[in-house]
Amino acid sequence: MLKALKYKEKSLQCLDQRVLPHQVSWLRCCDATDVVEMIRGMAVRGAPAIGIAGAWGYVLAAQSALARGDAVTVDTLDTEYRALAAARPTAVNLVWALDRMAAHLAGLGALPDGERVESLVAEARAIEAEDLEANLRMGQAGAGLIAPGRAVLTHCNTGALATGGHGTALGVIRDAWSAGRLRRVYVDETRPWLQGARLTAWELEQEAIPYRLICDSAAASVLATGEVGWVIVGADRVAANGDVANKIGTYGLAVLARHHGVKVMVVAPRATIDRDCPDGRSITIEQRPADEVRSLAGRPIAPSDAPVHNPSFDVTPADLVDALVTEVGVVKHPDRRGIERLFDR
Amino acid sequence: MLKALKYKEKSLQCLDQRVLPHQVSWLRCCDATDVVEMIRGMAVRGAPAIGIAGAWGYVLAAQSALARGDAVTVDTLDTEYRALAAARPTAVNLVWALDRMAAHLAGLGALPDGERVESLVAEARAIEAEDLEANLRMGQAGAGLIAPGRAVLTHCNTGALATGGHGTALGVIRDAWSAGRLRRVYVDETRPWLQGARLTAWELEQEAIPYRLICDSAAASVLATGEVGWVIVGADRVAANGDVANKIGTYGLAVLARHHGVKVMVVAPRATIDRDCPDGRSITIEQRPADEVRSLAGRPIAPSDAPVHNPSFDVTPADLVDALVTEVGVVKHPDRRGIERLFDR
Repeated sequence: MLKALKYKEKSLQCLDQRVLPHQVSWLRCCDATDVVEMIRGMAVRGAPAIGIAGAWGYVLAAQSALARGDAVTVDTLDTEYRALAAARPTAVNLVWALDRMAAHLAGLGALPDGERVESLVAEARAIEAEDLEANLRMGQAGAGLIAPGRAVLTHCNTGALATGGHGTALGVIRDAWSAGRLRRVYVDETRPWLQGARLTAWELEQEAIPYRLICDSAAASVLATGEVGWVIVGADRVAANGDVANKIGTYGLAVLARHHGVKVMVVAPRATIDRDCPDGRSITIEQRPADEVRSLAGRPIAPSDAPVHNPSFDVTPADLVDALVTEVGVVKHPDRRGIERLFDR
Repeated sequence: MLKALKYKEKSLQCLDQRVLPHQVSWLRCCDATDVVEMIRGMAVRGAPAIGIAGAWGYVLAAQSALARGDAVTVDTLDTEYRALAAARPTAVNLVWALDRMAAHLAGLGALPDGERVESLVAEARAIEAEDLEANLRMGQAGAGLIAPGRAVLTHCNTGALATGGHGTALGVIRDAWSAGRLRRVYVDETRPWLQGARLTAWELEQEAIPYRLICDSAAASVLATGEVGWVIVGADRVAANGDVANKIGTYGLAVLARHHGVKVMVVAPRATIDRDCPDGRSITIEQRPADEVRSLAGRPIAPSDAPVHNPSFDVTPADLVDALVTEVGVVKHPDRRGIERLFDR
């Protein structure tokens, strides 16, 4: 199975997603600062993968402390914790994973520092393994919702590259294809980073799942044909009321889907749900640099000083979501109560 | 005033819009075949500009006939007429302009061939001048609809580059800005050809009209803020019932605008209306090559063999259009009767 992050020999190997599909290049992170740079520079992307990278960043911070002769404690790792947590503002998984690592460290009791680091390595591996396991469960649950014979449309990349393996929305698509339920996948190219064109198309080719790549603005006319039964997307953060922050363009797709009687499925591990966030208005939307829009694949495509509005995410209100698929259950027409029930299981 | 097409010394000079804004390069067309290539290759684009280019192509065909010693008649120019008419399938202005040139030629009576060519030159100049005049009228009429203090959002390029000068939708925006009614213009980059990023942004910079360039998929979240009062677009073809074929993405914008209570203005000269086309279902939607989506200026941005769905246009149903602005009047909530009244004037 394809994995974008590999921890070995006290470093984190990261498949550089900025240069796929034309180059398969691995970056090596030796400390937490490298991981921050990698996350901020989007060599790794996708909320679950960012969470996993954050956990490994915390491990590398612990290793640096050990090498310096410092105690491996939550306090000594606090600077790196903050730097990692700030690397991307919207993905809740990052802070979730870091908090879990810090809580694990705080709970270790009186162990030698070397063993504390080893225990953090085991915890990061557990986060990774649980994410994969969650994806496999979500894949089955989501695929079960799809009536056979229709196409689906997806946005951004939510596959093995974005997660601990298999994928969230793309995991559902993999499983629906395996079950013979899918006719075809429409893939939004997903400007400005082209995760659909570069990564989702590439992942679908690996598995010979039939797809058509489209410009984001062609989605409306594809939905108008009646061929598509579901729009299936991931999430970067889900608020307590079911509002969903996800890659810019998701909200528009959800409005268009509703207009055309097409259903919207959001596939995200429970860790994506931020119970402290009451609704979408409380979600910080990251503004990314203007040059992401002013250039494409490194080439200028607009006046060099063009003013740009480049929000990385948008918020889809819960009432446009037909199903929220998590590893602990599916919530149809998510609302505050439906979301809360996921935490009783 | 900026003009993208200039006829002089028996040739047509064409500003190559494929390489703007980074290069200002002029192509020279010496015969109708050159014009066909230029239209098909999208060196010239925008429905009105394509019509004007077609008229000049017909002039060049007449000049070629004259140089060969053939009679300058509708019959001898028929091959070039057909080639020009087929250069882009969706833009009705092209066939409209060619038919007007052929009708003019047919009506000339017994004149020497040299004078017949001169008369065709005058007719092409008249088409160009009438288009500019129409744009100036539409600019005023459309700007009058806009309540002051809001932003507008536009798609593709409908400016001087796309027309005989001034522009259709962008002409309205120019005049609304001059009248102090606009706060700002949001410009969709308009994949795959990026006419918004490359051309509209460039035209707005020339006139110091404040704008923000956005990815097409960011339009929904911009509309959700309430800052935008109107979505203003051009049209490649308007059916007799008011359905509008325009650049891919227009239909989605219209659905999103309606969802957010934002109004939709379509700005197009009356020649864009195809009375022989009963409704949007009868409009041929051109499929453009896959490589427009798979690569940019020769740089691959997707797997090299990725299957692509690349419709160049979509159809916006008339009931999503709040105002159709033409040079002979504004039709609010266009329908068959409202459209028909434009031809009584």
